[in-house]
Amino acid sequence: MPLLTNGRIRHSVVFALAHPDGSDAEAAFLDAVARLEAIPGVEAFELMREVSPKNDYRFGLTMEFADPATYSAYNEHPDHVAFVAERWDAEVSDFLEVDTTAL
Amino acid sequence: MPLLTNGRIRHSVVFALAHPDGSDAEAAFLDAVARLEAIPGVEAFELMREVSPKNDYRFGLTMEFADPATYSAYNEHPDHVAFVAERWDAEVSDFLEVDTTAL
Repeated sequence: MPLLTNGRIRHSVVFALAHPDGSDAEAAFLDAVARLEAIPGVEAFELMREVSPKNDYRFGLTMEFADPATYSAYNEHPDHVAFVAERWDAEVSDFLEVDTTAL
Repeated sequence: MPLLTNGRIRHSVVFALAHPDGSDAEAAFLDAVARLEAIPGVEAFELMREVSPKNDYRFGLTMEFADPATYSAYNEHPDHVAFVAERWDAEVSDFLEVDTTAL
């Protein structure tokens, strides 16, 4: 992973879904998440399974942006706005966002 | 960041400290966290600042292990056990652990 220097920011989200584990609805949602990688400015994108017994999340997502302006552009991109409004809010039962930069 | 294939696991922690922001005690704790990187099996270690307004954590830590057995060895290593017992429990006010693997 590139080090978080010069304003670089890592945006991570852990989440659980309203859909049953292994369901087609879960798979369809994860496919939709994976498509976020195509939004301009997204780097180092990974969609992962969350396995710690110390929390109730099921999936993790991480991506990086060169700087806060690129991150803002991602947040405001029509594809991201639509995804959040049309899918995230309805299909995610719990989540946490974490943004990290160089110490 | 290496992809999480073949049993590889990423261990991440977000946390806040009982110490005031920018204090010497905070700096000393972060130095102690940084020394965990020397424990055998730790890869891709990063200690970061957490900046999202959507949570109250202040710092983030991430590391990777080649497989669950290496992660267990880290957890059981005397330096890690001592760090948790002697420092983490006393100086961390809130934290969340997240472990991720390939989807």
